[in-house]
Order: sequence, then structure tokens, then C-alpha cells
Amino acid sequence: MNDSYLKFVNSPLGGRVARSLGLPKPEVLRRYRADAAEFDGLIAIGAGRAPQLLDALADVVKSTGLTSVAHESAGLWIALANRHSLMTGRFEPTEPGAHARVAALVFDASGIEDSAGLDALYAFFHDTLRSLGKCGRIVVLGRTPETCDTPRQWTAQRALEGLVRSLGKEARRGITSNLIYVAPHAEHQLEGTLRFFLSARSAYVSGQVVRIDAGSGNAGAAGDAIDWAQPLAGRRAVVTGAARGIGAAIAGVLAAQGAQVVGIDIPSAHDALVDTMRPLAGTALSFDIAAADAPAQIAAALGETGVDIFVHNAGITKDKTIAKMSEIGWHNVIDINLSAQERIDDALLAAGTLRDGGRIVCVSSISGIAGNLGQTNYAASKAGVIGRVQSMAPQLRARRITINAVAPGFIETQMTAKIPLAIREAGRRMNSMSQGGLPVDVAQTIAWLAQPASAGVTGQIVRVCGQSLLGA
Amino acid sequence: MNDSYLKFVNSPLGGRVARSLGLPKPEVLRRYRADAAEFDGLIAIGAGRAPQLLDALADVVKSTGLTSVAHESAGLWIALANRHSLMTGRFEPTEPGAHARVAALVFDASGIEDSAGLDALYAFFHDTLRSLGKCGRIVVLGRTPETCDTPRQWTAQRALEGLVRSLGKEARRGITSNLIYVAPHAEHQLEGTLRFFLSARSAYVSGQVVRIDAGSGNAGAAGDAIDWAQPLAGRRAVVTGAARGIGAAIAGVLAAQGAQVVGIDIPSAHDALVDTMRPLAGTALSFDIAAADAPAQIAAALGETGVDIFVHNAGITKDKTIAKMSEIGWHNVIDINLSAQERIDDALLAAGTLRDGGRIVCVSSISGIAGNLGQTNYAASKAGVIGRVQSMAPQLRARRITINAVAPGFIETQMTAKIPLAIREAGRRMNSMSQGGLPVDVAQTIAWLAQPASAGVTGQIVRVCGQSLLGA
Repeated sequence: MNDSYLKFVNSPLGGRVARSLGLPKPEVLRRYRADAAEFDGLIAIGAGRAPQLLDALADVVKSTGLTSVAHESAGLWIALANRHSLMTGRFEPTEPGAHARVAALVFDASGIEDSAGLDALYAFFHDTLRSLGKCGRIVVLGRTPETCDTPRQWTAQRALEGLVRSLGKEARRGITSNLIYVAPHAEHQLEGTLRFFLSARSAYVSGQVVRIDAGSGNAGAAGDAIDWAQPLAGRRAVVTGAARGIGAAIAGVLAAQGAQVVGIDIPSAHDALVDTMRPLAGTALSFDIAAADAPAQIAAALGETGVDIFVHNAGITKDKTIAKMSEIGWHNVIDINLSAQERIDDALLAAGTLRDGGRIVCVSSISGIAGNLGQTNYAASKAGVIGRVQSMAPQLRARRITINAVAPGFIETQMTAKIPLAIREAGRRMNSMSQGGLPVDVAQTIAWLAQPASAGVTGQIVRVCGQSLLGA
Repeated sequence: MNDSYLKFVNSPLGGRVARSLGLPKPEVLRRYRADAAEFDGLIAIGAGRAPQLLDALADVVKSTGLTSVAHESAGLWIALANRHSLMTGRFEPTEPGAHARVAALVFDASGIEDSAGLDALYAFFHDTLRSLGKCGRIVVLGRTPETCDTPRQWTAQRALEGLVRSLGKEARRGITSNLIYVAPHAEHQLEGTLRFFLSARSAYVSGQVVRIDAGSGNAGAAGDAIDWAQPLAGRRAVVTGAARGIGAAIAGVLAAQGAQVVGIDIPSAHDALVDTMRPLAGTALSFDIAAADAPAQIAAALGETGVDIFVHNAGITKDKTIAKMSEIGWHNVIDINLSAQERIDDALLAAGTLRDGGRIVCVSSISGIAGNLGQTNYAASKAGVIGRVQSMAPQLRARRITINAVAPGFIETQMTAKIPLAIREAGRRMNSMSQGGLPVDVAQTIAWLAQPASAGVTGQIVRVCGQSLLGA
């Protein structure tokens, strides 16, 4: 849990040593704190031809209290900001050597209809990237390629991925770069997701692509008064594997956002679970989720009031090359990480325990995306989780239930603390943040997916990996 | 173009040095040679419950002349092989220390309907992986997840990706591991693709997932007599950027497979292009593909006879961070690598120059998938190529035209020879083959996609990267 290199290079002496030796200098990431403003500073706006999301963007600028400045590509913004009663000005590049004042760069690419139109993105990021401060945010807004009318439009929108991922790798300094695709008529579902990617809550989420659809709920509809400090107020949430590590962090963040939390863990972790739940005023339930009768017992324990949010976090590893792996080592990993989730969801959905409009969030892994040496069982289970999300999302739409997954990269936990130093260091540095993430980074991402305002986000896999180089 | 480390560690002295220092020992990959048998040795067959592709697999075993042995998971194979008049036996593990005799491991997972059924894959690969020889082949056959009837089936099929990618990372020794998803009623389209993944032609293609659909052509239909040594006989193929490097290799392989080749390159490369085309008995055409009138001129030059295959290989890089990139550096990369392809295809399709049943193959890049520092322009253009493939595939179906892309990783060319040694070495070793690929590896992959027997393969992106660690 202790990245001593990160601390060292961010000390006065360590910074000088790192500079003189040309060592990487990972930034101390700015993370969400309840005692500090969530949004602060300037947001620079750019746009391609015929931008379609500026009104939705204006709503977010207003609700976050950010001050906007318009790049010359976004000539429409000034008049529009005035209509929305927003303070705005023109973007001026930061002088070399001066403190970079811009907190976020947002580009509306939704109207770009062919590859030639991509030039506007060059102009915006060429002019503005150096003015973006440490731990700044880059967000590009596009149209979901699969919804585009012509191959040329689809192609241009798909091209944004390559740009956004490259920007993340160039920007460094704790800056994140993400792409949000908005389907037609889904503009009213943008706010919750855009706020997340602009906030310090998404400190370790970079290089990601999220698709927003019109959803079937109205929770994110314009005009709703959402309490962004307590977006989960009145919601009941279940977290499996909640006693320690990432699960405990998830329970903590959900509770901090107002949820009433039920933690589940194995009987042998009962005391730790109780200790974790106590300060959250949560409920501790001891179950072996892999037991045949666990789904029915969990459904019964949750009772007729039901739940709004179910986070499938519990998981195990039993790493061995397949030639040396035991049959039980294979079976248990698949069963606990994947099959148990299937059995529990089937039971909760059949009994109506998960309410209509609910949220299922699963924990996958970069191993499930890229595969990993010694993890045939774990990678298969986590790839299966991706299949669960993709297959169930369409089926759950009628009940306004969303299902998504997060895929953590290198997260500093008691588990990673046991990895040999050289491998641990490689895992920590091989990403755009040059450091491992924290359990709270996974938890914040899950909390965003669990919010009522995420009604338009379903079937998505979001990596929490600091834009790890690893992938497929 | 010269991986001296690879040569060194595969010399008697170098091998001893590498062993004593614990250095990686990349395998000299076995590549296709016209003067050697394409298929040789044992193929071990495994299967999950109710396998549905064993008949199609038997056709391929027969046509390749491989000798099959059945793992105990594939009890049905023996009787089926007898029906197909195939020599077969039971799989026996290679004794420790003995020469591993198995050339390929193929598992039919198509009938697996839930995550518990994945246990059969463990049993097969646990028993067989150590018996697989150097440069062996792992192929798992599954059902396209998106076509599955139930979420549980979709989930189990999707889980195969995690397993196959992990096996590639574990197996090493020049072994490739790939996953072929076969849609319902597409069994007759499997042969060309399965042959490619079993052949030495796919030496540098690993960790890939290819989806096969029923297609609309009948070229791969059972009963057709396909000349697998000259599958492109009678076909006319165009390759852009054909003067040198990967383009010249593509032209060479297409010609070797029987195609009549037309090479296109810029006027300044005219002499090199003529030299490349001469031994292929090909035609050299000098055009700047980015010129406004190029599409019409190319269509005119190809004439009314038209072409069957168009390979969009021409591309440029102009690497700079976006803050330092010139507007023209951005524009030219997007225009040549992406927009020119769009203009040319539009012209050829409108004029009917690309015949019905034709093949379009584009060259993307790992940068287009993962993004890259200093390549915002290149990555956007190559991500756009992916969008082109995905958007046009459905539209071209009515004309039985397929469109696919290859995404090369680190390929040894004159361009990569100029990369500083340390970065070049990192690029070379960060993949499951611990070496860079060769232009011929990209060319062989394109030739497979261009074959008549690939009628069921469209809208696919196939990396030629030795299972590079890099991705998204």
C-alpha cells in the first residue's frame, strides 16, 4: 500500500534527484475530498463544426460552477453561455513559465461528419494542452459511432479514440483523457458522466471510452434537482467482499454518497466485516457466495424491501500456469468470480429483490481483457464478467436496470503489496500516471455507475488503470 | 531489419550465455516456405459438452493432412474421424524430456452453455500444453457471443477470450494462441481461417479473436475444390504503398498465392516500385493517392475489368507531440492514412471497379487501438480505419464484398531500424514472441483475408503483433 518512490520524488530533495537522473516523476493525484470544492478553475471549450452538445455542456458548467473560456473553434459558445447566464471569456494561452490555470479541456466533436473535420481537434488541443494544469481533465464528446448515419461520420467519430488515447499518453502530469460518446436523444443523460470525468473522483480513470444512450429512466432528465453531494441518498446498496481492500472502499464511498450499505463477506471475515460496516452504519451479512444456497439466502436476508444497487466485488485468485494448476484451483476461481455472480443475479432478479431502475456493477480486471501469465482461470472468469455485462444489459433494459463493470489495473492493496518489488514497480509505472491506483479510485468509479444519473450508461466496461499500457 | 539478439541467443554460445544470465530466449519462428510442407505432425483435439464444429474440423484435418489424436474430453472424435476416413488415435502426453510431438491443440468449445462447462478447457490444456512443440498452434473454436441465445451461454463463450490470451502469454516458445468464433450456420466458412491459424503463415499472429459469419458468398462452401497453394489464382489485386517495406511484402505474397498484382506508389518511388513489381510480373502505377483526382485516375487505370482485392497499405507518420505538431503535419497524416482511403473506395465502389465478392483490406496499427505518445495524428487516422471497417462491412454485404483490417505491432522495417536501440529493444521484446515481426507476417495475414475462402470474415480487426502487451 506504500508507494515510497512516489513520496520520494515529490519531496524537495527527491524531486532534485529525479530531475538530475532523468527519472519519472509521478504526480501526486488530486482526489475527491469532502472538505474541498469538487470543481475549481477554468474549463476551456472547443468544438468542431455544428456541435450538438453545447447546451448539455452548458448545464454541466453551470452545475459545477466552473468558469468557461471559449477557444476560437467554439465561436458559438459565447452567445450560448450568455443565454445560460454563465460567466465566460475567450481562451488565452498560459504564458510559458506561468502557472497553468486551466482545469479542464472539453471538446464537442459530436457534429463532425467526416475525417477532414477532425482538423478542428488538432487546432484546439495544439493551442490549449500546455495551458492545462496538473491533474487536469481532457474530455472529448462525440456521437456513438454505431448510431451514425454514414460510414464517413462513423469513421470520423471512431477516429476520436486514437486521439484521446494518445493525448492521455502525452499529457502526463496526472492529467486524464477520456471520450464520451452520446447517442442521439441521449443528451439529457450526459450530466452525471461528464461530471464524473471532470471531477477529482476520476483521478485514476484515463484513456477510457464510455457510450451513453437515452436510457429508459428519467432520473437524469433535465430539470431534476439532483443532490450531487449525496447522489445515492435513499438507495440501498449491497457490496460483496466488503470486509477489506477494494470492497471496503466501495462500501465507504457508497455510504459517503448517501447509500445505506449492506456488506457481504465470507464467515471467516465476519469480524473484519463488522468493523468495516460499523462506521458506515451498514449491515454485515456473512455468506459464502459460492454456496449452493447462498443466492436464496441472500435474497431472503435482503427481504421484501429489496435493493437498488448490487456490486459484485468478491473474487479470488489462484495463480498457476495451467500445466501446474489443480482442477479445484481452476474451478473455484471460475465459480466464485463468475458463476456465483450469475446465480445470485438470477435469484435476485427472479424474486424482484433488485428493484426496477436498479444498478448492477461487476468487477472485471485488465487480466480479463488482456489475459495474463499464470491466470488462465482468473482471466477467463473476468472475461466472462465482460460477457455477463454485455449479454444482460439489453435484457435488463425493460426493467430500467443497468449493468456495467469496472476493470481495475494495478491497484495498491494488501494483495499487490506481496508482489515482488521489481514486478510491483513495473506494474506501478507502466501507465500514464506512473503509479498504482488506490481502492478509492475503483470505488468512486463504481459509485458513478451506481448513481441515478447514470441511467444512460449500461453494458459498459470501464478500466480503472491510469491508462495502463497493457491491453489487447 | 536485423534482430542480432535473436540470432545471438539462438547460436550455441549465445544460448549458453542467455541461459546462465536468465535472459529471454526468443524462438526463431517457423514461417511458411513454399519448399516445405505447410502442415506436419499431430493435432490434438479436445471438446466441451455437445461440440458442434467437429465435422468442420474433420474437413480441415483431412485437407491439411495432419494426424489427429483425441484428448479424453473429445470422446466423439474417434468415431467421427473414422467416418471421415481419418487416421486418429488417443492423445498421450509427451514424456518429460522427450521431444514434444504435438503441432497443434484445437478445442471445440462451441457447445458450452454456461460457465461451469469451462472446466473442460482446463482439463484439455492442463493435460496437453506441455506436449505442444515449439512454434505450435493453439486454436479454440467457440460460438460468436453476440449470437448466443442466453446470457449464460454468451458469458461462457466470452470467457474464452481471457483463457486464450492467457495461454498465449504462458506458452511462449513461438507458440500462437487464437480464438475463432463461428456464428450459427457459418460452419462451412471455417476452413480458410482455421487453416491460416494452424499454418506457419500466422507465425506472428497471436492472442487474436476472429468472428466468422455465414457470409453471402459460397466460395468457402463444402465441396468446392480449393487450390490451397494458389488460393488467389485468377484474382487481380491492388496494393498501395507497394514500392518498399510492408507493401512490397504484401505484393509478393499475393503474387505467390496466384494473384495478378497492381502496385501503386508515389511518383518519387517509381523506380523502386518497378523493381518490386518486375519479379512478380505485376503492374506499377505511380499516383499520389492523396491528390484530389487520384481516385478517378486509379479507377480509370484499373479499367473496366476491375479488381478483386484492394489493399490500403500506403501510410505516413509525422510524429510530434500535439503542442509541437504543425497543422500540415496533422492534416497530411489524416488525409493520406484515412481520408484518401475513403475517397478511393467511394470511387471504386461507385464505378464498380471493385467487383462483387471483392475484398478490401486496410492497414491499421496498434497505435490506432491504444494511442501513442507523439502520434495523435497517426493514432486518430488508424483508429478511423477501424471505424471504416466496422461501418462499411454491413453496407458491403449486399455486394458480397468483405472489408477487414490488420493492425501491425512492432514489425522490423527500414522505419523501425531508425528507432533508438533501447526503445527498439523494448518494442521487440514486449510481446509473447519476444521479437519483432517481419513484413511477410503482415502480408500473409492480409492474403488470408483476401482469399475467396474468407467470405465469412468481415468487419474484423486482426493484430499482427506477436501478442504485444500493449493495448487498450
